Amino acid sequence: MSKVRIGIIGYGNIGRGVEAAIKQNPDCEMAGVFTRRDPATVKITTEGGKVYPVSELAAHKDDIDVCIVCGGSATDLPKQTPEIAKMFNVVDSFDTHARIPEHFANVDAAAKESGHVGIISVGWDPGMFSLNRLYGNAILPEGKDYTFWGRGVSQGHSDAIRRVEGVQDARQYTVPVEAAVEAVRNGENPELTTRQKHTRECYVVAKEGADLKQIEHDIVTMPNYFADYDTTVHFISQEELDKNHKGIPHGGFVIRSGATGDGTNKHIIEYRLKLDSNPEFTSSILVAYARAAKRLADEGVSGCKTVFDIAPAYLSAMSGEEIRAHLL
Amino acid sequence: MSKVRIGIIGYGNIGRGVEAAIKQNPDCEMAGVFTRRDPATVKITTEGGKVYPVSELAAHKDDIDVCIVCGGSATDLPKQTPEIAKMFNVVDSFDTHARIPEHFANVDAAAKESGHVGIISVGWDPGMFSLNRLYGNAILPEGKDYTFWGRGVSQGHSDAIRRVEGVQDARQYTVPVEAAVEAVRNGENPELTTRQKHTRECYVVAKEGADLKQIEHDIVTMPNYFADYDTTVHFISQEELDKNHKGIPHGGFVIRSGATGDGTNKHIIEYRLKLDSNPEFTSSILVAYARAAKRLADEGVSGCKTVFDIAPAYLSAMSGEEIRAHLL
Repeated sequence: MSKVRIGIIGYGNIGRGVEAAIKQNPDCEMAGVFTRRDPATVKITTEGGKVYPVSELAAHKDDIDVCIVCGGSATDLPKQTPEIAKMFNVVDSFDTHARIPEHFANVDAAAKESGHVGIISVGWDPGMFSLNRLYGNAILPEGKDYTFWGRGVSQGHSDAIRRVEGVQDARQYTVPVEAAVEAVRNGENPELTTRQKHTRECYVVAKEGADLKQIEHDIVTMPNYFADYDTTVHFISQEELDKNHKGIPHGGFVIRSGATGDGTNKHIIEYRLKLDSNPEFTSSILVAYARAAKRLADEGVSGCKTVFDIAPAYLSAMSGEEIRAHLL
Repeated sequence: MSKVRIGIIGYGNIGRGVEAAIKQNPDCEMAGVFTRRDPATVKITTEGGKVYPVSELAAHKDDIDVCIVCGGSATDLPKQTPEIAKMFNVVDSFDTHARIPEHFANVDAAAKESGHVGIISVGWDPGMFSLNRLYGNAILPEGKDYTFWGRGVSQGHSDAIRRVEGVQDARQYTVPVEAAVEAVRNGENPELTTRQKHTRECYVVAKEGADLKQIEHDIVTMPNYFADYDTTVHFISQEELDKNHKGIPHGGFVIRSGATGDGTNKHIIEYRLKLDSNPEFTSSILVAYARAAKRLADEGVSGCKTVFDIAPAYLSAMSGEEIRAHLL
């Protein structure tokens, strides 16, 4: 079987993660990194791998089976994914939940017209967590869903703190409330407010002479980001931040709590992730779905798909016989 | 959309569970229970529901969309599922791992010839646990798989104890070794022997005057079932067994422990079930896959499938738009 030739569009944390994941999958190969930066300034880790200006992507039509778009959901993906779907099979990690219907429609139209496959919103949430919500709901229709995130770094919340006056650097951890998780695991089906589900821990480096009291106040009262949570602010040195908070760990839990029969038999389905590197894990999922995109395209499928539409077997490098023998 | 009309073939624990699960799914309806017993002796719980001799199944060809075969894997399913696939879409919970290739081939041949869909080995292991092994392997190709079962009742081991001389009744619990689960969760990737993964707890009612020492010896040294495990035997009264050990709880964990990047970033994916009723949970999964079988058949698909071949969206009663809006 021919290899899955993957083009990496954008070389940030996710792009680097995709490059690393390709090396773990012998049936995949890196067909080029495409960047908006000057290619000469981009150092990649694939021996003999090439870096091209993203403007030249179209010229590589015959060298790439699937493009993985590694940009941000705010401005990059809504534009890039439909555009690329006009020429390539494409996978992205679009995660702005409210705008998924619109993004789906745009990618679907472009991919159907060009006869390609686009798989959007691939990662762990949306992605693996979504799958577990779906399986849980289908199996236990009478029940409740719970999703907890963390303990892990929220890039969006860290950025929000960095925009506060007097802040030099910051790292924010989202932390699930242990008592809430336990209540859910025990089948108590609690009604939980935002505050009862997660707390927020902030590690902040203040600029010299900054008003610490004011910074703390500005953070904990910030609407949407912190006001609805119990937030703790720890002031630390840049040195300490760099030493102890450099990683990008994350994770969380999806729990379906339901009942069957006459309602007396309770069941708990729990899916849990504990990740040292959020972007590397997301990238590993993207590569598995790139494999699926190529297979579906080879079968003549076209249009936009999500993780819900992909039969699990398409993700595996093994044959049907092998997965039935080893994993069933 | 028309309802999924489900025929229940066999009315033991699983058959009753399927009947209960159908009531939780408004898009499904019970199209009849088919039994080898005298139908007059079988009391079902569906208002207006009918019980027929299984020999008359063929006459109901136009009233049933999917048959769920609720027999045992040892002798019932290998015969019944391919036979029924000649006339109906069919779902079963065949769980004899070693014989899955043979069963798959038999059901595939029958289903392809008749133009129906057969989905085999549906449940939680094989089934949901298998899916999690597949997703885990696809996402983290460099890693290790761990499956733990329990704490839960093993019917096979309980039956084995009941065959020991002097035993009147028994219930056996499979128990995962907590320290082993913790080591796996911590990313230690231990090599675990059979004995290090699970213990076996036996609750035994001895016949009057039986030799308890001999019974205990016969149990703990029984090859395949107990000899490779740390087994504890508790002698209790029939009263106590009936009072405290009547349920059929089960559960377990599938854990994928892997690394990404240069191998320094570790990730743990854990899927965990805690079930009050093993058969009712299995039945709930069977009904979700019956929905999928009908949809696939409506699309013109035929042949044998496993959980690996079914796109998750087919399990949900919701439309594509709805699942993208609510679960993605």
